[in-house]
Amino acid sequence: MEHKIDMKNEPIHTDLAIELTKNEVRSNEDGIKITDINLSKEEAKKINKKEGNYITIEFDDITDYVARKKVKTVFSKELKKIIENNKIKKDDLCLIIGLGNDKSTPDSLGPLTISKVLVTNHLFLYGDMEEGFRRVCAISPGVTGSTGIETSDLIKEMTKSLKPNFIIVIDALASSSVERVNKTIQITDSGISPGSGIGNKRKEISKDILNIPVIAVGVPTVVDAASIVSDTINYMYSHFAYQKENIDNPKTKLTFNVNYLKYGNKTKIKREDRQKLLGIIGTLSDEDTKTLIYEILNPIGYNMMVTPKEEDFVIDKLSELISEGINETLHEKI
Amino acid sequence: MEHKIDMKNEPIHTDLAIELTKNEVRSNEDGIKITDINLSKEEAKKINKKEGNYITIEFDDITDYVARKKVKTVFSKELKKIIENNKIKKDDLCLIIGLGNDKSTPDSLGPLTISKVLVTNHLFLYGDMEEGFRRVCAISPGVTGSTGIETSDLIKEMTKSLKPNFIIVIDALASSSVERVNKTIQITDSGISPGSGIGNKRKEISKDILNIPVIAVGVPTVVDAASIVSDTINYMYSHFAYQKENIDNPKTKLTFNVNYLKYGNKTKIKREDRQKLLGIIGTLSDEDTKTLIYEILNPIGYNMMVTPKEEDFVIDKLSELISEGINETLHEKI
Amino acid sequence: MEHKIDMKNEPIHTDLAIELTKNEVRSNEDGIKITDINLSKEEAKKINKKEGNYITIEFDDITDYVARKKVKTVFSKELKKIIENNKIKKDDLCLIIGLGNDKSTPDSLGPLTISKVLVTNHLFLYGDMEEGFRRVCAISPGVTGSTGIETSDLIKEMTKSLKPNFIIVIDALASSSVERVNKTIQITDSGISPGSGIGNKRKEISKDILNIPVIAVGVPTVVDAASIVSDTINYMYSHFAYQKENIDNPKTKLTFNVNYLKYGNKTKIKREDRQKLLGIIGTLSDEDTKTLIYEILNPIGYNMMVTPKEEDFVIDKLSELISEGINETLHEKI
Amino acid sequence: MEHKIDMKNEPIHTDLAIELTKNEVRSNEDGIKITDINLSKEEAKKINKKEGNYITIEFDDITDYVARKKVKTVFSKELKKIIENNKIKKDDLCLIIGLGNDKSTPDSLGPLTISKVLVTNHLFLYGDMEEGFRRVCAISPGVTGSTGIETSDLIKEMTKSLKPNFIIVIDALASSSVERVNKTIQITDSGISPGSGIGNKRKEISKDILNIPVIAVGVPTVVDAASIVSDTINYMYSHFAYQKENIDNPKTKLTFNVNYLKYGNKTKIKREDRQKLLGIIGTLSDEDTKTLIYEILNPIGYNMMVTPKEEDFVIDKLSELISEGINETLHEKI
Repeated sequence: MEHKIDMKNEPIHTDLAIELTKNEVRSNEDGIKITDINLSKEEAKKINKKEGNYITIEFDDITDYVARKKVKTVFSKELKKIIENNKIKKDDLCLIIGLGNDKSTPDSLGPLTISKVLVTNHLFLYGDMEEGFRRVCAISPGVTGSTGIETSDLIKEMTKSLKPNFIIVIDALASSSVERVNKTIQITDSGISPGSGIGNKRKEISKDILNIPVIAVGVPTVVDAASIVSDTINYMYSHFAYQKENIDNPKTKLTFNVNYLKYGNKTKIKREDRQKLLGIIGTLSDEDTKTLIYEILNPIGYNMMVTPKEEDFVIDKLSELISEGINETLHEKI
Repeated sequence: MEHKIDMKNEPIHTDLAIELTKNEVRSNEDGIKITDINLSKEEAKKINKKEGNYITIEFDDITDYVARKKVKTVFSKELKKIIENNKIKKDDLCLIIGLGNDKSTPDSLGPLTISKVLVTNHLFLYGDMEEGFRRVCAISPGVTGSTGIETSDLIKEMTKSLKPNFIIVIDALASSSVERVNKTIQITDSGISPGSGIGNKRKEISKDILNIPVIAVGVPTVVDAASIVSDTINYMYSHFAYQKENIDNPKTKLTFNVNYLKYGNKTKIKREDRQKLLGIIGTLSDEDTKTLIYEILNPIGYNMMVTPKEEDFVIDKLSELISEGINETLHEKI
Repeated sequence: MEHKIDMKNEPIHTDLAIELTKNEVRSNEDGIKITDINLSKEEAKKINKKEGNYITIEFDDITDYVARKKVKTVFSKELKKIIENNKIKKDDLCLIIGLGNDKSTPDSLGPLTISKVLVTNHLFLYGDMEEGFRRVCAISPGVTGSTGIETSDLIKEMTKSLKPNFIIVIDALASSSVERVNKTIQITDSGISPGSGIGNKRKEISKDILNIPVIAVGVPTVVDAASIVSDTINYMYSHFAYQKENIDNPKTKLTFNVNYLKYGNKTKIKREDRQKLLGIIGTLSDEDTKTLIYEILNPIGYNMMVTPKEEDFVIDKLSELISEGINETLHEKI
Repeated sequence: MEHKIDMKNEPIHTDLAIELTKNEVRSNEDGIKITDINLSKEEAKKINKKEGNYITIEFDDITDYVARKKVKTVFSKELKKIIENNKIKKDDLCLIIGLGNDKSTPDSLGPLTISKVLVTNHLFLYGDMEEGFRRVCAISPGVTGSTGIETSDLIKEMTKSLKPNFIIVIDALASSSVERVNKTIQITDSGISPGSGIGNKRKEISKDILNIPVIAVGVPTVVDAASIVSDTINYMYSHFAYQKENIDNPKTKLTFNVNYLKYGNKTKIKREDRQKLLGIIGTLSDEDTKTLIYEILNPIGYNMMVTPKEEDFVIDKLSELISEGINETLHEKI
């Protein structure tokens, strides 16, 4: 009961619309899955997000060059589409903003990308810029923790003097599922609230505030501890179900380190088994379980950030992919 | 049963001796707790560690200057002691090694510390070094993932030409409890195995291998996902016990975000309650629970690294504390 | 003649008022020299600088801890004075701006200092700030070359939302003399023009523009090639004069690597000797020589930046000195 | 006279063989010039270099993508050639060493390149490496100033355990001419002496010492102050000659900022004019002039490092070019 109430105050920690809505996959080729979500004001309000279009690109791995190139092509195609849908013209001035903290590996996606995008605005000012390039500015405003300034206020004032026609903002996001970390790109024209996903909500950066299109590009690089705990509970069920089914299967007796998830679909755990395994917890819905875990971890300050071990390497590749994708999209000549 | 067997193959992921042994606190003043552990060959073998002396300094917070200075004083006093116990003379040449990856925030403690320690050896070579300073070399060998080289082999050969009289090696460690992350310094003369704590064991760096004293200084900066899950289960018990006890306490009705841990001692959960709450899981010992969770997360590759949100800031302060502590200990003049 | 004309178009490349005006040393103790310059509108115009007060602190070396501490004490005393002269109150909000490029060693003084100053503004917002601390924000806006944005415009808009009561801006400067590089701190309430010293003038950051006091703190970290050439010509004279005088001095026959500058005062070179040594060039005034060299190096694009070899180390120490000095000045509690 | 003597003690500061020997251009296409130098023991001794083959690639600009790609293709073709000439087989283990200081922009070429080369050795150890890749290790040993260790000793011991079949060492070099800075790649099988070019000679890294081929790849990123002064004196002559010739040319009256170098060939300055312009200095040979300037700048510690203003950007591009060139050369699959 109280849980239900709390759930409203304590939204699930994710920046991905795909994790909060029913949705249909638009295409799924070459291991790259694309999903469209269009949130109306009402739907958006329900899940505490902003209305707008959300394009979600899911992939397996971008550490190898070939895979990365494939994802990059899809990414810039989708970015181009959303830019056109927002009536942005080929000569419009673009301001690219890299949110996040360049000193914290999983939060450095924004600043790293900024350091790799092509900046041209000053060259136009000095008059030495050739055909086929768009005017582009880029900035990493830093995090409030080290500037003392509300990032969205900073952006708001900047746009007044700079007068960009549209903004692309890049940020590391939070996912509520470990399976999506570093394996998802979300593109949306609904803007962004810096750090909203990891629970310290700041004022938003959006068309409502700035009166120009704000296209946000994000990749989940963290999940919070509560998410990994509730995920683990679900894995427990699959694991348990798998074990039960294979109890007399000599093969699994030998190989214990089997990836039972692959069998997850076949083996559904029964309600009574869930309860047998996990008691009261076993009777709770996913949402209630998650909410309970937030209630347990937050007050004692242990709802930490979860990050894969090779994060620094992956972030470097992701920033390369996104910066190149943006360069190709913004400049005809490239 | 199988769990028991597995437990041997799958050690609990921690680099802290204090988390693997019964031990007695030596002193507890000013919120700084010091524990001595002396592992014999046999005891060490049991817990898959190396024999030797382990000094563990536990504290609450080092982000504020005054607290940090206090911890630094204790740290260099204890470091001095272990150096003397190892019969190291005041003119002995010291090689300081910073293990870890400077591009990955929670793993950058070693390289960051190296960048701040006082290096003097070359000044001695050039003859322009005053009294009261010891010969010190320092290096960050990088991680195998980016060098392709087994770090311990690298160190082994280096010592052959450099001929240091002793080594101080600094590394970020893994803890099996979130409560110790960034709040513990372990000093030991048993050496270290790079990355052992986070599950990719490498050859060790120790007196057995190098025939000179190797003093390892480490701070846990990560816990793995399995640890946070099993910790959470224990918090569930405290939380549940607290709720049950305070069910009719009007105060707690209002303030839900109460830190129930403070009441943890008062309220012990009963065995039947554990089972009621968590079914079969509720019947397992802590060790078995943890082992089960490893079995669940490892095969599917989701036993990720958990790190506090402000890690970059804390690591910077920790490296400052340790480098200054080492400088004061190694050089009379400072 | 033409030189004279050109000289007006081609100002000498320096950000230090002390290098452009007659001035009197206020104090000279402990190897730390302090000079006050007060430029009226007229005087300022003549030398292409802004009117205001310039405090110049000259010292020998800050790489050693004791020397650095001395300079720091002098620096924060002088900074406090200029802050008080500008009627800044103890509760006034301060915005600290670090100009320059953190990726270019000699230009990274500003960003490096920012990363070390104490930022408190957000803590006041969240209400958890104790007595004795001032509200401080800090930002490194980056360089136009990588943002595409005119830095002064950026600052101008930021101040509109942030409404600081005064600004401290830190920047690496250019000197026209190698002897001052890394050995001078200039504090002025006349503001600054980013990059003016190294010849790519930008719009200024000053009280005239922002209507609040702007205190600029700078250290020369570069000289341009033309300066080092003309300096060298002067050294040629001293060297030549010294040689001539000591031609029969057996001591100097043996030790060739003598620092003749120490004898510079004793030995003045005669006009005819200058001409004998350097022909027409020997007849030119310092100013004309410098101007001629600009004419020679600029059109072929070889007026490069000159930097000492250990710059990265010195910059680190300088940023430490300045950040600590600022922290002590801005916060009573420190 | 004394100059002659001194000249032997005081070699001209350059790491480029091309600046110390007569040589013939092998090819000059597309603005990319390739020169071969083969130094015998005797010739090498005369110019204080090591015997061996030196391939010098000179180009104009690599900041634009197309130009960079052209130079990269030439570079990896030449690197492949020198590798084959040294009888290195396709499965031989390669150790890549990045010399220099990652904290000092013009000296960071080595470490930056290392961070971008493909490292595979550990993958072979773990058995998950596909066909078409060579075993490669890479390390940035740091500079003696921050490690306290003689870099060549470090390398020597490393090779004993690692047993590479050959070494590729990358380092930022010094040139004695501003015109070559960032516009030259030298590939040689004669090895290298860390920091030799900028006057603090260290023990060499070469086949003589290590008994395996050592291929050094270097780019001049600095010239010392003495070089720029003597270059300037030569520009003075061209400038003077140009002026004299065009004294009555109305065009040059108007456009003063003309690049007189382009006319340099046409206009040779006469001996008497040199003397008229620069007196005694005008009578000295280039070599003597340079040596004199060293005598003037060294004893007073002002022989600083000269670096172009955009160095950080250029270094990033150069390290990209070299790392990609090396990857293509070492791995058939790429």
